[in-house]
Formats: sequence, structure tokens, C-alpha cells
Amino acid sequence: MKSYTVIGTGAVGGYYGGRLAENGRTVNFLARSDYRQIRDNGIRVDSPRGNFHLKDVSVYEKAKELPPADVLLIALKTTSNKMLRNLISPILTDNTAILVLQNGLGMEDEFKRWFPENPVLGGMCFICSRKAGPGHIHHQDYGLITLGCLNEKDADLRNAVGLDMEESGVPVTLIDDLHEARWRKLLWNIPYNGLSVVLDANTKRIMDTASSRNIIERLMREVIAGAGACGVSIEDEAADKMLAFTDKMIPYEPSMKLDFDNNRTMELEYMYNRPIREAADNGYEMRSVWMLYQQLLFLEESRFNGSGQAQE
Amino acid sequence: MKSYTVIGTGAVGGYYGGRLAENGRTVNFLARSDYRQIRDNGIRVDSPRGNFHLKDVSVYEKAKELPPADVLLIALKTTSNKMLRNLISPILTDNTAILVLQNGLGMEDEFKRWFPENPVLGGMCFICSRKAGPGHIHHQDYGLITLGCLNEKDADLRNAVGLDMEESGVPVTLIDDLHEARWRKLLWNIPYNGLSVVLDANTKRIMDTASSRNIIERLMREVIAGAGACGVSIEDEAADKMLAFTDKMIPYEPSMKLDFDNNRTMELEYMYNRPIREAADNGYEMRSVWMLYQQLLFLEESRFNGSGQAQE
Repeated sequence: MKSYTVIGTGAVGGYYGGRLAENGRTVNFLARSDYRQIRDNGIRVDSPRGNFHLKDVSVYEKAKELPPADVLLIALKTTSNKMLRNLISPILTDNTAILVLQNGLGMEDEFKRWFPENPVLGGMCFICSRKAGPGHIHHQDYGLITLGCLNEKDADLRNAVGLDMEESGVPVTLIDDLHEARWRKLLWNIPYNGLSVVLDANTKRIMDTASSRNIIERLMREVIAGAGACGVSIEDEAADKMLAFTDKMIPYEPSMKLDFDNNRTMELEYMYNRPIREAADNGYEMRSVWMLYQQLLFLEESRFNGSGQAQE
Repeated sequence: MKSYTVIGTGAVGGYYGGRLAENGRTVNFLARSDYRQIRDNGIRVDSPRGNFHLKDVSVYEKAKELPPADVLLIALKTTSNKMLRNLISPILTDNTAILVLQNGLGMEDEFKRWFPENPVLGGMCFICSRKAGPGHIHHQDYGLITLGCLNEKDADLRNAVGLDMEESGVPVTLIDDLHEARWRKLLWNIPYNGLSVVLDANTKRIMDTASSRNIIERLMREVIAGAGACGVSIEDEAADKMLAFTDKMIPYEPSMKLDFDNNRTMELEYMYNRPIREAADNGYEMRSVWMLYQQLLFLEESRFNGSGQAQE
């Protein structure tokens, strides 16, 4: 049984950390905007797997005050990663494991470069959840977490974290190839996140319209080819399965669309730039993915320049 | 000296037809929404090359009432082309020439298939003009028309029309290869028209932002490669010239953006689908152009389904 510190008590960190705490694990939470609410009223989770309310939560406003823990659960968006290096540096011992619960490619390698002594794990969360309010998480659907480790020698640690999660009611799949699992998750994330922003559409409209569905399919084929160039073999049927899976989903706004619509920075670096670069470095240009990425960069820049309108 | 019938008395037909009429050519105009205004008050043209006001205009509301003429000047958008076949059929004699003043690829071949006996000419208008109101054209800048003929045997006819235009104050370039000229015009039209719609931006913002400029450059390289596959050799410097030219333009909203913003159907068929198909039939896939086209199709469909919002 491990102890945990959750960095980022939002839709992901609040849910998984909450599950672990509810089931008797020692869990400390770092919270920013929600700090007072959580300190005074705890964390509430609404979930089809059972609602719960954590009343006495070990919550901190300042990272440097956090007590040591076995595992740091990184649940902030990747747009915070540059700042994360300094944030977590003071609370790491040589044994503290870093478990990255983020979307994209290359985060684990980056944490490893920053903290070469520390075990680094990666977790992919297949979950629909959102923050309903301060200290209040609404878990809507799914919830599987797939867990892998950057170095094989940390497999026991991965297994121990997996066991903690499972005993807390979280479905877990242990994986041997983290790099492959990251690319497989990109097979959904790259097409749907970006296109939903550029076309201002949810998954249902994208899937129900022939033209946007055509684009999704082409992007998926390109991600599979890009992964292949990087030594990750993904079978063509994986794309068909993703399409069929998304056809059956309730109309869904991907996280990047929610970020865009709520004026939060989009996770472009790790979800687009890193995969595009890794594939290109290995000899394959994901040209359609690149074009989508450039369009997203344009929208990001327009927005923060306050000039989102074409009329001047 | 030829006689003319202008089909579509808008920004293009009103301007060029107006110039010809002002300079003594016989010109009949077909007008729809502007018919009464033109009948009662004529056509006014504001232009940096000199304003003018045609008072007694030979204007018709119904195509079948139009008198015969030597040249039909096709100045409706290509979105009307399916309807045009029936519209002009009754007023054609075997000798009536059809001069297509439209943007895109393959219009002349289509008119030729419909009316194999008639000479078909093509004209590319390098002009900024807009309809300021009923019977009122605002010519803003440029105005060059490049004239070519589908079959070499019609070169004399092309020359005669060119002479009429020049004598009416319109700069003319006569061209021998209409197919090449169409592709060269697409080198500007394909990138800027579509991207300005998808990104909701005018030419200045597109050129001033690195990401959108990157996309424009890639689209241009693809159009050059597509043209090459179709036997049309365009030198790489043509793209650089287009970029430099657009850098110097005043902020401009391409015609497709104006159409989109004003809820008019976009000219997707001849400006995107035909060039994509022609290149593909000759072994080259313009993949970025295709993706832009699919995005435009999505926006077109969303709009006319009245579901332009992502929230449902």
C-alpha cells in the first residue's frame, strides 16, 4: 500500500485521488483555486459507480508544505509542465515515483530527464469527468486507467499502484509498452480534440457528417503511419474500432474543445507538436496532423491577441 | 466590334459589361434582384479609373426575352452553373460565343460539353469589386482580365473581345493556354479563399501569423504539384510572388469568405473538387487541399442545417 500526493485536484486528480482516499490510502492533495473549499468542505464526487464525500481531506495550498509520499500523481494539464519541474522538485525524495496522468507524448521522458533518479510511471485515463464546482467532481462515464512504467525495473511499483487503484474501485490495465500505449491513445486524441475545436463541433456532429468523418479517418491513418515510423505497430482495425466506439458515445466535447471554449490554453505541445516531431525525426511526415496543428496554433494565437474576429 | 449579353449583373458582370456599354458596345444585361432599379435608374459604377453612370440600360428580367448577341458574358457564380445550362440554352445561336468569367477549374469544358457547337472563351478577372447596392458597383482596385480560348480556332474571336475590352478601358492580357492560366489563378484562390473561411480571418491576419502563413505556403506547393501532374508547369517562384503580392495587399476578405459570411453558397465544386479530382486522376493527391475542402464542406453543411453551434 502506497501513499500518494495528488498534484492538481481537478476532474482527473480529484476523481482518482478521491477514490484512493475513500478506500483508506494516505492521499495528500495540492489545490489552488479550490483550496479553501476543500479544506472546509472536503471533496464530493458524483459517479455512476457510487457517489462519495471525503470530509477530512489532507489538502495543501503550497507545494513546499506537502509531506513526503511514495507516489506523486501528476494530474495538471501539460500546459503546466514547464512550471511543474520547479513545483515538485522540493518534495521529491530519491524514491518518490512520478505517475503522469496526462494526455500526449513524451511527458514521461521529460520528467525522467529532469529527475533521473526517480521512477517514472505513466497512466492513461479513459474517463469522462469534469469539475462541477470547487471541490466537486462529476464523474460521467468510463474510468479505466492503463498503467505502464518508463523503465522495466519499475514494474513492481507499477503493479503496486495498480493494486491500490483496483482495490479502490478503479478498473486497471497493466501495460508493458508505455510508448505504444501513448500512441494508441493519440489515435483518438489527435483527430477528435483538434477537429472539434477547428470545426466547433462535438463528437456526434463530427461523426454524423461525411466530410468531417473523412478527415477523422485520414488523421487516424496518419497517426497509425506515424506510430509505425516510431516503431509502434498499430493494426489498421484499431482505427475502425475507435470510429465504432465514438459512433456509440453520447455527444461529447473533447477536453481541448472545453479548454478552448473556456479560454484555457490548449494542450498543443504534447498532443500535436511532440508526436509530429517524433514521427518526422523517424522519417514520416504526418501532413494532415501538421495542418490541423497549424490551424490550432492560429486559433490559440488569435484568441490571446484578442483579435478573434476577421473584420478589422 | 461585338455585341454582348451579360448574364449576372453583379460586381464582375456589372463592371465589365458597364465598361463595354459606356464605350459604345451593344450590351444587354440580365438582372434578377436588381432588375427594376436598373431599368429605372441604370447602372452606376464607382471606380478609381473614373466613375460613370449608364442611364438607359438594355436590361431584362427573363433570359428568354434577351435578344441575340455575339458573346455571352457568364458572370454568375459557379454555384449557378447547373441552372445556367437551361437558362442560356434558348438564347444561343450556333455562333454565340460563351465567355466564362468565373473562378475555378473545368467550367469551360463543361460549357463545351453542353454546347459543342459554340465557341467557348475563358476570362480571369484580377479585380477587387463589390456590389454596393442595387445597380451600384464599387470597383475598388485592379481590373486586369486575362483572356483565353478553349480551342485554338477561336483565337480571332478572343482577340476581338480583347480589343473591345481594351478600347473600353479594361487592361487585357491574351493567353494561349487557358488550362494553365486557370491553374495559376487557383494558386491564389485555393489557399486564401478556403483558409479565410475556416480560420475566420482576412488576408492580413493570415499573412501576419506564422502558423496560417505556413499552411498557405504548403497549400501553394501542393497546387503547383497538382498542376504539374496535370501537365501544367508552374515555377516555384510563382508561389513566392503570390506571397509577396498578398503581403502588400490591403487587408482583404476573399470572395468565398464574403459568400460564407453572407450566407451564400460557397463555390466549392469548381474551386476545390474539380482541381482535386483532376490532380488525383493524374496521379497526385493534394492532401492538404483535400482536408481544407472537407472542412469547408462541413461548414457549408452545418450552416444550411442550421446547427452551426457545437452545443446541442
